[in-house]
Amino acid sequence: MSPADRVRDRADQGASTVAAHRARRRLRADRARQLADLIRHQLLAGRFPDGALPHETTLAADYRASRNTVRQALDLLRAEGLVERLPGVGTVVVAQKFPHGLDRLMGLAETLREHGQVTNEVRTVGPVPAPSPVADRLHVPPGTDVLYIERLRRLNGLPLSLDLTYIPLDIGAALLGEDLENTDIFRLLETLTGTPLGHAEISLEAVNADAHSAAVLQAPRGAAVLMLERLTYLADGRPVDLEFIRFRGDRISMSGLLHRSL
Amino acid sequence: MSPADRVRDRADQGASTVAAHRARRRLRADRARQLADLIRHQLLAGRFPDGALPHETTLAADYRASRNTVRQALDLLRAEGLVERLPGVGTVVVAQKFPHGLDRLMGLAETLREHGQVTNEVRTVGPVPAPSPVADRLHVPPGTDVLYIERLRRLNGLPLSLDLTYIPLDIGAALLGEDLENTDIFRLLETLTGTPLGHAEISLEAVNADAHSAAVLQAPRGAAVLMLERLTYLADGRPVDLEFIRFRGDRISMSGLLHRSL
Repeated sequence: MSPADRVRDRADQGASTVAAHRARRRLRADRARQLADLIRHQLLAGRFPDGALPHETTLAADYRASRNTVRQALDLLRAEGLVERLPGVGTVVVAQKFPHGLDRLMGLAETLREHGQVTNEVRTVGPVPAPSPVADRLHVPPGTDVLYIERLRRLNGLPLSLDLTYIPLDIGAALLGEDLENTDIFRLLETLTGTPLGHAEISLEAVNADAHSAAVLQAPRGAAVLMLERLTYLADGRPVDLEFIRFRGDRISMSGLLHRSL
Repeated sequence: MSPADRVRDRADQGASTVAAHRARRRLRADRARQLADLIRHQLLAGRFPDGALPHETTLAADYRASRNTVRQALDLLRAEGLVERLPGVGTVVVAQKFPHGLDRLMGLAETLREHGQVTNEVRTVGPVPAPSPVADRLHVPPGTDVLYIERLRRLNGLPLSLDLTYIPLDIGAALLGEDLENTDIFRLLETLTGTPLGHAEISLEAVNADAHSAAVLQAPRGAAVLMLERLTYLADGRPVDLEFIRFRGDRISMSGLLHRSL
């Protein structure tokens, strides 16, 4: 073998060692994610009712994974704020995600009824001239006053969502005297109009919270937020409630059923 | 006024100036968020078809906002990766979110048909012993081999989602010879079993991407991800497909209709 060949050979070996190392690291990370997803499901489904996860060796046996993979998976769940690892105690569940129904149009207090008390801190309430995209969607002339409400919503005292709401003023004006702190707007709308709600067009996105929204929600800057835009119609077809809702990603999961044929 | 009173008075004035300053800043931030939500809606609804937003002064007039608020709102949308501000050009749309249907159970290529070509990079495919939460949900004995598939899915070449999939092996084995790169698993399952899909149980969450998932999705570390867990059943009631899907938050929005009564 010529000296040049030897150098090339050694370089190849070096490169293949680096490549093999990278491939192993990638495989470990893939396995950790795979395991973290399974444990996350169990955790959100309430399968660790005493709040403690099984010991690492038990998890490793249950999931046919190495202890390294188990540790890495638990690190991922810790980074998501779902578990904490306490020395001498083990891994404990520190966050609970509350299930928001995605099958039926429901207010927050309605959908979380079994999970506790929803309270609303009204940050702003009052008429504003409707910007044209609001006016279009609520079927009022642009510039007409609509009722604008901004609420920080809590479940059992914990911040859950920040809701920006626009309502046509002829319906909205009556909301001003109502108990917005403790009542879903959906319920108030049905009571005040004497008409049930019909349907809503929704869209859901995941966004990183800007600094100000994060501060209001008491979440870290950049925290993942489940953003829901919802335009709700009365049963008679009139649009009555346009909302922009930021749910703290670590506290809400939306769940429902989808069917293949309509 | 005594010297002590004077000091107290000045401190009070100082405190109230600080409080007033904070209140103004909070109000500005609230207004910027409010405006950003409206512009985001317009942007995602494709209301700026030439890819350029109106000039700041036009936006300020249209939305009855100050130019400062407009600038701050555009900064929020820029931080979300939706727009860029080019000196001398103005504000341009740089990201498009694709609408994923939430009304009907559909595969990715199906739901995005009008938006382009979905391709799948198969990162892993092969049998693995089913961990117990997978076995339970797929109705197979724990430890039985199931088919595990990991795919990075792209739309027109752009990474859109990372999908982890478990399928019972009696059905999954036949998938191995199929064109997984270019075909939705949903379509393959219906073709191979001769049975239409029935329904799926889904849950949706917003999470911050861990470093490895972010790297695979070519997104920044910590980027908001729309996480979909979905267990799909054949029309005969048999569970056939358990998936854990991470959608890039900046590229997908899920939309559908909710009804008040079922």
